[in-house]
Formats: sequence, structure tokens, C-alpha cells
Amino acid sequence: MSESPPTHAAPMPKVLAFDVFGTVVDWYGSIVREVSERRLPVDPGQFAIAWRAGYRPAMARVRSGELGWTKIDDLHRMILDDILVKFGLDDMPEADRRDLNLAWHRLDPWPDAVEGLRRLRTKFTICTLSNGNLGLLADMAKRAGLPWDLILSAEVFRHYKPDPEAYLGVCDVFDVGPSDMMLVAAHQDDLAAARACGCRAAYVERRHEFGPTLPKDVSPDPANDFHATDFLDLARQLGC
Amino acid sequence: MSESPPTHAAPMPKVLAFDVFGTVVDWYGSIVREVSERRLPVDPGQFAIAWRAGYRPAMARVRSGELGWTKIDDLHRMILDDILVKFGLDDMPEADRRDLNLAWHRLDPWPDAVEGLRRLRTKFTICTLSNGNLGLLADMAKRAGLPWDLILSAEVFRHYKPDPEAYLGVCDVFDVGPSDMMLVAAHQDDLAAARACGCRAAYVERRHEFGPTLPKDVSPDPANDFHATDFLDLARQLGC
Repeated sequence: MSESPPTHAAPMPKVLAFDVFGTVVDWYGSIVREVSERRLPVDPGQFAIAWRAGYRPAMARVRSGELGWTKIDDLHRMILDDILVKFGLDDMPEADRRDLNLAWHRLDPWPDAVEGLRRLRTKFTICTLSNGNLGLLADMAKRAGLPWDLILSAEVFRHYKPDPEAYLGVCDVFDVGPSDMMLVAAHQDDLAAARACGCRAAYVERRHEFGPTLPKDVSPDPANDFHATDFLDLARQLGC
Repeated sequence: MSESPPTHAAPMPKVLAFDVFGTVVDWYGSIVREVSERRLPVDPGQFAIAWRAGYRPAMARVRSGELGWTKIDDLHRMILDDILVKFGLDDMPEADRRDLNLAWHRLDPWPDAVEGLRRLRTKFTICTLSNGNLGLLADMAKRAGLPWDLILSAEVFRHYKPDPEAYLGVCDVFDVGPSDMMLVAAHQDDLAAARACGCRAAYVERRHEFGPTLPKDVSPDPANDFHATDFLDLARQLGC
């Protein structure tokens, strides 16, 4: 998509809400790092992919009402216990499981993320809108130096994305209309759900979200308001 | 209270949760500033005291269930509309009322607050636990440079302090036991409610919370774990 679509003539949004896993931080590379540091006898990349693959089905059980409200920390732990069996690591002690599960609190940002956010923050209110729980996001932000104005989570709204309550919840927190909020994400389905609520949408390419050997389709969708190669490019397009 | 009560031998808490209005920021001086800047024909100090005086009764209506969940922004506005009549300013236009109501988003920190928080943050997870709403607290933090690890509010828990759900909600967010959380506040009733939940308590003197002419009783209560003259003193006592 061009850098000057018609929607750019619309007033700028006031609030940028960022998806986090994959958009701000590199979950794949970070889980590979954590697994490698422990010298677990598994392929770290396959382990990371398997752990992440359990994420949507687990959230779907909460979204459908099959499970009551359950934090991502607890969903990550349920998935971990499951994949440890599949990877032949079911003798891992409890303390090690607890520590490994906290790997999701220690995800590293993409190289452009901190500087990009710092620039965007000069002109916009920047917040998270993540399915990750508040404690996880706070630990991650402190470790990585992510300069959020506010950490928001599905945990606040008791609804996981893509439920509309999550996107509209951000608007309610800041007392703005949907068109004053723009979701920034590396996932087209997340952006489509935000647009369906009347919010604006900025796609960010994270070609290697699933690792260096599985490049993702990062084709533009003309329905989005912006398409950026990274946060520095987004900042430039938004005049920061 | 002495600086070395028996409880100091207990393990340090992990999370410091801060009351905000009066403890971190000077609501009295800031509302006086906002009213004075507008040259309203009222005594700015009396106006500030009257506005704040409506706060507890308004929250009590929410806590009792008489009012459904209502943000502080909306409670502040209800009180403002009420006191404008009492102060003979009921001809104030809607746009001016909206802007004046946002004065609570622009409260100034006490002089020691930013530096004290910066020090405390090196050793503890620091968060707010305020009855102020998230948008208010985020605007305040950005304007004043308050370096929170996480902004938490009664709005997240849908319970105003001193309901136990607020204090225990902080513990749940960080997945810690009550004794790992310490409330820092300039109000003994807030601290007493936290202690009743098993949390720890640090009192901070804010002698001039109600203005220079109405000094507050800042006597120590031996039931608290710490008693500090300001945040720098608290940081020193906590080894930061």
C-alpha cells in the first residue's frame, strides 16, 4: 500500500495501542534463547513453535466460555505441561517448569522497538493492547525498557482479542471515539477486528516472527490505514 | 515509630503499590493552580477543598451499589457540577467544565516524588493503586514523568479502596502473596485496610495535603511497617 492513502487526510489518532507478542517483541527468538540456555535436549525452534501453537486454542476455550477467565501465564503453563510430554521432558521438576514459564516475561524487543516507541510517544499516547497478562507485560517492559504510557491487557477487560470489548475497552479508558484509536500489529486478523470496531489500523512487517526459516507473508492489506516495515518507519510516516 | 521495628527483619516486599492523590501528587496545590490560572471569582483553596470533599461520599455511593461502576473522572464531574452552583459559577459553559474537570489529570507531584520513585524502582516493582481511573493516571504520569512499572487502578478491579478486592487485586496481578506487597500511602485508613488484607504498610507524611494553613496530623501508627517523611526517606530506609 502506498504511504499516502486517502485516509491519511483524516485527523491523526490520539492513541496508539500495540499488539505485543510478535509485534513489539520477538517471542520466537527469545524462547529459543531460553530453551538453549537450559540445554534442553530438544530442537529449540520446534519447541518455541509448539508452545506458541497452543496459545490460540487455549484462548479460544476462554473466549467460548468453556474455561472461566484464565490469565496467559496460566494458559502458557497448561500448554507447557502438555508439550513437555510430547517432547519427552515430562520429568522436568516443578521449580524448573515455573521458571521456564516465566520466559514469556523475558521476551526481547525487536531491534527498532524501543527507539520507535520513544519517538511515537512524543506525539501520541502509546499503550499495549495484548492478550498477555498485566504482570507479564510489566516485567517485560521493565526488563526491555519499553516506554509505555499505559499497559493495557485483555486482563483488564476480561476479554481476549479479537473480542470487540478489548479494542473498545481501550477507547473507553482514554475517553476517545474508536477512530481516535489506532491498533498497531503484525497480524492482519487482529487489525481486521480493530477496524470492525471503527478503530484504525497500522500493519507492521515482522517477517521473521516464526523464525529465520519460516518467513511470513507480509503483504499489505489496503484496508489498513498504514503499512510499515518497522516502528521507525511507522514513526516517520506519522511525522515523529 | 523507630526506623528499625521488628518487622524490618521480615523479608522485603517485592511490590510497592502507591496511593496517588495526596501521596504522590499535591492535589490541593494543583487545583488551586488550575483555578487561579482561570481567574475564577472564588477562593481557590476553598474550591479545591470543596471539590475533594465530594470524593468520598461519591465513591461511597459506588461502593454501596447505589451507583453502578463509575469512573473518578465522572464522579469528579458530578461533584464539580454541584459545587459550581454552590460557588455561584453555574453559568460556566460545558467546554470549560470539561477542561476544568481534567485538572485532576494535571496534578503536580510532590518535589521528592519522581526522584524517590526512580530510586525505589531500582529494587522493587512499583505500581499505583489509586481510585483514580487509568486514563487519568496515565495522563498524570506522562506529564509529571512518574516512572511506574505498572499503573493499576480501582478501575481494573471494579472496586474502590478500601474494598479488599483492590489490595488483593494487586497481589493477584503480580502473583505474589499479600505480605509481598506493601502499600505506600499518606492516609492511615488506606494503610489499615491494606494491613487487614495481610499486606504491609508504609506511611508517608504529607503534612500539607490540605494546604499550608491546614496542617494534617502525621503521627506515626506503630501498626505500620514503615513511617517516612517523604519518598527519599522511604527509599533510604528500604536500602535504595
